[in-house]
Amino acid sequence: RELILGLEAVLADGTVVTSMNHMLKNNAGYDLKQLFIGTEGTLGIVTRLVLRLVQHPVSQDTAFVAVAGFDQVTRFLNFMDAALGGCLSAFEVLWEDFYGFLLGGSQAGNPPLPPGYPYYVLIESLGGHRQADRQRFQAALEQAMTQDLLVDAAVAKSQRERDSMWAIRDDVEKLLQIQPLFLFDVSLALKDTRAYVDEVRAELMRRWPDHQLYVFGHLGDGNIHLAISAGGQDGSARSEVEALVYRPLGAIGGSISAEHGIGLEKRRYLSWCRSRAEIDLMRTLKQALDPKGLLNPGKVLAS
Amino acid sequence: RELILGLEAVLADGTVVTSMNHMLKNNAGYDLKQLFIGTEGTLGIVTRLVLRLVQHPVSQDTAFVAVAGFDQVTRFLNFMDAALGGCLSAFEVLWEDFYGFLLGGSQAGNPPLPPGYPYYVLIESLGGHRQADRQRFQAALEQAMTQDLLVDAAVAKSQRERDSMWAIRDDVEKLLQIQPLFLFDVSLALKDTRAYVDEVRAELMRRWPDHQLYVFGHLGDGNIHLAISAGGQDGSARSEVEALVYRPLGAIGGSISAEHGIGLEKRRYLSWCRSRAEIDLMRTLKQALDPKGLLNPGKVLAS
Repeated sequence: RELILGLEAVLADGTVVTSMNHMLKNNAGYDLKQLFIGTEGTLGIVTRLVLRLVQHPVSQDTAFVAVAGFDQVTRFLNFMDAALGGCLSAFEVLWEDFYGFLLGGSQAGNPPLPPGYPYYVLIESLGGHRQADRQRFQAALEQAMTQDLLVDAAVAKSQRERDSMWAIRDDVEKLLQIQPLFLFDVSLALKDTRAYVDEVRAELMRRWPDHQLYVFGHLGDGNIHLAISAGGQDGSARSEVEALVYRPLGAIGGSISAEHGIGLEKRRYLSWCRSRAEIDLMRTLKQALDPKGLLNPGKVLAS
Repeated sequence: RELILGLEAVLADGTVVTSMNHMLKNNAGYDLKQLFIGTEGTLGIVTRLVLRLVQHPVSQDTAFVAVAGFDQVTRFLNFMDAALGGCLSAFEVLWEDFYGFLLGGSQAGNPPLPPGYPYYVLIESLGGHRQADRQRFQAALEQAMTQDLLVDAAVAKSQRERDSMWAIRDDVEKLLQIQPLFLFDVSLALKDTRAYVDEVRAELMRRWPDHQLYVFGHLGDGNIHLAISAGGQDGSARSEVEALVYRPLGAIGGSISAEHGIGLEKRRYLSWCRSRAEIDLMRTLKQALDPKGLLNPGKVLAS
């Protein structure tokens, strides 16, 4: 959202609204682009965009880190966020089981860290000064180590080592070998994350003792993904698993979708994390902009 | 906008819409807070906010710089933006006349730089590592100097020196001694800024040879302020001056308001920088959320 400066959209009645703003600051009337960003084509069809570009970073510092507990993960995130002064660009957390799963089987080569630690973090900093940024990155990691925020760390010494660290994190499609597979994209406060994952795990254990649960996420953004295999190969457990994952989120102010939207798949669960007044207001907008329900009908809100 | 995570608003019919989201990423349905941010209370009354906090910066590096031409101002901005890797936090440009005006009269003490250069930039970097950030800041300034992007520079060596640099920039209220005084808050592309200011100056010169024009701005955001004194003490030239300042903006995709909104004062000029289709869509929103026109009536859009 922050990187979209302007756009053009076609409304349900055919009107072309051209708001190809190039400015960083424009407070002349309503910021209309916000109507079309993230609304899944239900209020208008985006036909052009103005994107904000930023300077290509000069420095890139990457490390793979092992952490002893979730409290430390949180403190390590806060510590590095402060120490890197706006340059923290990735904080990808892999729960122990998921790291073990990714390393297992056909994966060749030496992993950056041995399996068996409770949490792994792929952390990266992007900045503008190669030497000073590297010094800052390494000093921050060393300081984190002395504060017991991490128990082991491997710093990438070359692009090849950096690529192989990211290859582990990006090998998510390895999950697609599992059947059945239910993937989730939830958002919640960092302070609630451990208890939430514990609760989901306990519920899964009670219902399907032979389930599989893999957790990873963009913790810097408070967004985690759960990959769950449970029930029969035919995926018949889907609704039950979805309910189990989504139900706790309402009470803790979480969201059933951090990144991927609602579409059709999550429509029935929207009211689990958004209030009646919120959904009514969404309907008011939909009615005002698309009274005949022509635009991506049935998505997000039931017709 | 980026620092507002959630809010509560009261709608025209009394409904309280509570969207007190605390998450950085939430893509569950429409992002309703965007309806209320920057709409000047015309679509709902904001009663609560959730603000995003960031780590307090550890380092603060500040310099006052003189630049020989506007091209160099632009290149200096791009250069420092890249070199500081996300830590550039202020890039305040003062045109020659305005710096001279601020230094004039009762202002005591030594200014950081002598008057007479075409442009002055107050630049600041906020970061997380005192020593490395200072090294980076000074190295970048030295490199900019060798590339002829700046002609003189004073780096603040103490909090006192930093405060006195900011005091110059912040002494804007000194303008209020001038009568009449018309203040503007426009946004436009950096590449158009010099020609735009030249055009405004030439028009003022033609119409009021004894006018005063002072220009300064947040160039990092593409936002400049013009302070103009022209015509009789009674402010009777206001409409003429406004037209002169706002008219060129439409053709170059600028905005009549970067920060301060439309309210009543700029309502008649809204169509000079927003299209008919955009204003119609604003009216559609207003009609949908406030059909009786109860909320801040007459502001932004004429009733």
